[in-house]
Amino acid sequence: MDSLAELAQELRRFVKDRDWDQFHSPKNLSMALAVEVAELLEHFQWLTEQETAELPPEKLAGIREEIGDVLIYLVRLADVLGIDPLEAAEDKLAKNEEKYPADKVKGKALKYTEYGD
Amino acid sequence: MDSLAELAQELRRFVKDRDWDQFHSPKNLSMALAVEVAELLEHFQWLTEQETAELPPEKLAGIREEIGDVLIYLVRLADVLGIDPLEAAEDKLAKNEEKYPADKVKGKALKYTEYGD
Amino acid sequence: MDSLAELAQELRRFVKDRDWDQFHSPKNLSMALAVEVAELLEHFQWLTEQETAELPPEKLAGIREEIGDVLIYLVRLADVLGIDPLEAAEDKLAKNEEKYPADKVKGKALKYTEYGD
Amino acid sequence: MDSLAELAQELRRFVKDRDWDQFHSPKNLSMALAVEVAELLEHFQWLTEQETAELPPEKLAGIREEIGDVLIYLVRLADVLGIDPLEAAEDKLAKNEEKYPADKVKGKALKYTEYGD
Repeated sequence: MDSLAELAQELRRFVKDRDWDQFHSPKNLSMALAVEVAELLEHFQWLTEQETAELPPEKLAGIREEIGDVLIYLVRLADVLGIDPLEAAEDKLAKNEEKYPADKVKGKALKYTEYGD
Repeated sequence: MDSLAELAQELRRFVKDRDWDQFHSPKNLSMALAVEVAELLEHFQWLTEQETAELPPEKLAGIREEIGDVLIYLVRLADVLGIDPLEAAEDKLAKNEEKYPADKVKGKALKYTEYGD
Repeated sequence: MDSLAELAQELRRFVKDRDWDQFHSPKNLSMALAVEVAELLEHFQWLTEQETAELPPEKLAGIREEIGDVLIYLVRLADVLGIDPLEAAEDKLAKNEEKYPADKVKGKALKYTEYGD
Repeated sequence: MDSLAELAQELRRFVKDRDWDQFHSPKNLSMALAVEVAELLEHFQWLTEQETAELPPEKLAGIREEIGDVLIYLVRLADVLGIDPLEAAEDKLAKNEEKYPADKVKGKALKYTEYGD
């Protein structure tokens, strides 16, 4: 597979073959996405930050599957809404470049009043 | 931008320019990902499924930004872990094809004992 | 058990018996809380709103366990931070009474610009 | 307020005054709960575990509000489902006592295959 567009296409077929379109409202897909992200969190919750940066291969294999699941639901949700996720990310990154000028925020974690949008 | 690999590259530069690598442990990035996904949920929480399938353009614009954020953190997390997210999704989809044979699950929402992995 | 204070007390003992205090930073506990809430979401994600209001007893039993888990981590997190969760809820409810006057918001789902704090 | 039952009672009145019952399906309430928990995560995501254990008072005030919100939605969800959350937590804790015998798990973070139920 070469692109998110191709993944979206494959997912459309997968869903159609199973007659699952009826369950794939944006609302439901956002919930499924949240569930998959929590399965990622679960891998990390009791580890130190350092430990999560040095994971053994068998843990990485499990995490890789969850990352696959998250991308699947994200691409599916975007497809149902008619949104191109890569373009959306590109636009958001451009916005973040302006919002967080490198010389102002260098080396500082943002205060929580500054994130969240 | 043409690919997730290019997005990952851009994010590396963005983070390096700000000296934010120190904050980007997999643990922290998984939390940031969960926060962004919740901002998606927030758009949908009080709407009916039907309403979430017929959103007016101004709502879609807000949702598009959140989808951008989710993809940004997902690609960043995968990059830090050395995982190719598109390959991970492709492998997971192949696994799901076997796990949920079309003729067995057609038109049925999975029982909750059947999802969650 | 008669109160959240008693539950907090029991949890302190449970954690101390297992020498788990070292893992119970507010950061980690917030992640555990998010994971448990996602297990609740998982029960509801493919059901219609109506179906989630008419659950059969065996589903309710599973959901009840997740609600127990969520309360456990919430009370534990609040205890570690020195916060009384019931007082916090009471204060927040009083604030919401002012923020959402009944005669102004009656029967309306809040627009998403109005929630989120 | 002296108990979760009293909080549940107050919330019923709050919701009725606003004619919001129509939005309070278990499905929607679980989403609202997830959104509030993510607002907790947001406070902690870029801090070290140590920093989250030594928060300045102004941050704690914000966190206290989120804890109030989480308890509000949890109690509301449990009430709509006819579940007593404190009893559910008590039963779950008893189950955990058996599942994780102190002498077996002392000082060990559980492997991720061992949590998640």
